[in-house]
Amino acid sequence: MLAAYFEKTGPPDVLQVGHLPDPTVADDDVLIAGRYAAVNPIDCYLRSGSVPANLPRPYVPGSDLAGVVVAVGPKVHDLAVGDRVWTTLQGFAGRQGTMCQRFACPRSEVYRLPECVEFRTAAAVGLVGMTAFIGLVEKARLATNERLVIRGGSGAVGLAAIQIAKILGAQVVASAGSPEKALACRQAGADHVIDYHAAPWFETIREIFPDGVDVVWDATRSPDLVGACQILRFCGRVVLMAGREAQAILPVGPFYTKEQQILGLMAPLASPESKDRGAIALSRWMERESLRLPIAAEFPLDQIAAAHRLQESATIEGSATIVGKIVVCLPDG
Amino acid sequence: MLAAYFEKTGPPDVLQVGHLPDPTVADDDVLIAGRYAAVNPIDCYLRSGSVPANLPRPYVPGSDLAGVVVAVGPKVHDLAVGDRVWTTLQGFAGRQGTMCQRFACPRSEVYRLPECVEFRTAAAVGLVGMTAFIGLVEKARLATNERLVIRGGSGAVGLAAIQIAKILGAQVVASAGSPEKALACRQAGADHVIDYHAAPWFETIREIFPDGVDVVWDATRSPDLVGACQILRFCGRVVLMAGREAQAILPVGPFYTKEQQILGLMAPLASPESKDRGAIALSRWMERESLRLPIAAEFPLDQIAAAHRLQESATIEGSATIVGKIVVCLPDG
Repeated sequence: MLAAYFEKTGPPDVLQVGHLPDPTVADDDVLIAGRYAAVNPIDCYLRSGSVPANLPRPYVPGSDLAGVVVAVGPKVHDLAVGDRVWTTLQGFAGRQGTMCQRFACPRSEVYRLPECVEFRTAAAVGLVGMTAFIGLVEKARLATNERLVIRGGSGAVGLAAIQIAKILGAQVVASAGSPEKALACRQAGADHVIDYHAAPWFETIREIFPDGVDVVWDATRSPDLVGACQILRFCGRVVLMAGREAQAILPVGPFYTKEQQILGLMAPLASPESKDRGAIALSRWMERESLRLPIAAEFPLDQIAAAHRLQESATIEGSATIVGKIVVCLPDG
Repeated sequence: MLAAYFEKTGPPDVLQVGHLPDPTVADDDVLIAGRYAAVNPIDCYLRSGSVPANLPRPYVPGSDLAGVVVAVGPKVHDLAVGDRVWTTLQGFAGRQGTMCQRFACPRSEVYRLPECVEFRTAAAVGLVGMTAFIGLVEKARLATNERLVIRGGSGAVGLAAIQIAKILGAQVVASAGSPEKALACRQAGADHVIDYHAAPWFETIREIFPDGVDVVWDATRSPDLVGACQILRFCGRVVLMAGREAQAILPVGPFYTKEQQILGLMAPLASPESKDRGAIALSRWMERESLRLPIAAEFPLDQIAAAHRLQESATIEGSATIVGKIVVCLPDG
């Protein structure tokens, strides 16, 4: 099969596209002919080596996949050849990722894709939707009518979090760094959008919600706990899921005397039960069109290096102004 | 009735002992003739004004009380005059505290004291036991065989946390700053005691548990999140319950990529359900003598100022080397 892979870490041009053996299908596995995969920042970190990981070599990157079942192991009885499916959180913990024509993984990680949902929609939602679900629902336990601030609302995770928070009935303020990004946040359903560069951000929030907010989702690479503790009410929660190099200052007194919590989020580490609940919810919300992500760019598999370059310029260098997801169309055959 | 109280905040000698009107007993209240109350650091913070609070004036300090029921409101049918009882978490949220001869509070906050448990034992356990229970059980959800580090293990909360963690079946390392304090930690049941001044502490922990620990309870006034994130395993939790003036540095990357959590603890803010579970557990553990605290000093009510001075010298100035609780014997009548 055709696959994108690399033998050693480095810049985007370490990525090759070529033939690899088809995966073996274990007894409880499903073999998927992939139609669309998506690029996520973690793919770039693993490829560049900036996030050290014990990767198989060659390593096929990619967390998300949507496609059609082409084979099932003998223990799989509730999915059949031809079924439309999606999966996510692949390519971690020593396992191969999804940027390939045929991908095998356990039945428990494969979810039915409703007929009306396009493959590329499901690929785009995958990891960012699951991350937002696990963070908001499973970790922060965001409740109806609670107030959520999303710092960095226009990133793909931020846009998914805005939509999920609105589905849950929360009130949402997002920060965004440009008029285009602010528009994307509004289109995702944010009740208020503030300028990311307006300092201090928490004072702007205070003008909107004078008595504070319940959850701060900080998707930036420089989380601001001083601001978060200022604006959070009693029992407020901060979700952290970015900023690998950051050192944040925590004002201990305001934090503990208000019984606040800081919750680290790394979706691949969530429990199987959390992931199952996420998959059910995300499938339903995609079907109802209450959750979808703008597609910023689509590449064919043989341009995977260009897709990585664009992702890096947007996430790491901040020089691209894309809004939404980068998806990769996988070749037939 | 006789009570200790102050009209305005300030040093220990703002405390007066004199007559105040007996409390009124609401329909669902219990009136307790107090035998023993205890002094906690929060009493000193409220009295000095270093923790601003909206206190009634005059304000009677005190969170903990053990005594005998002397009257019940007409809606109270399951406690009777003469019953031995205890209570804690009093004196917060605009309400009066327990340093007085007769104290009234709702039935739901009054717990039966097993016959074999002395009044002063229950007064000593109260707030610190409830704090340790809510932090370890309700917040951190410490599990059997998990590994707990208690920084500042020889404070009263630390000694209660060591005992509760051992009851729960955890493995406990405590840090202590002197041989006397180390001995108290060992007597409380700590599996290992390390020198608080040994730097860096987390490397000493690493020698004991090379693959890390599950929960760090930081009872010091300078919580060390850098060290905690170093030593915590995946899904590790930090409990913070002291350090009002501290600014702690959080290394964001190691924290979120290991799905760690930081949990602020302020026991009076816990849910009524958490407090009920705590009261049941603490009563049972006191009855079985698996939970008790050393009594460092006992004062009569009219020496309440001296009791506050000793608490301050131990907690705030660090100049006293007391181990255990300061209790106050309340006068009959």
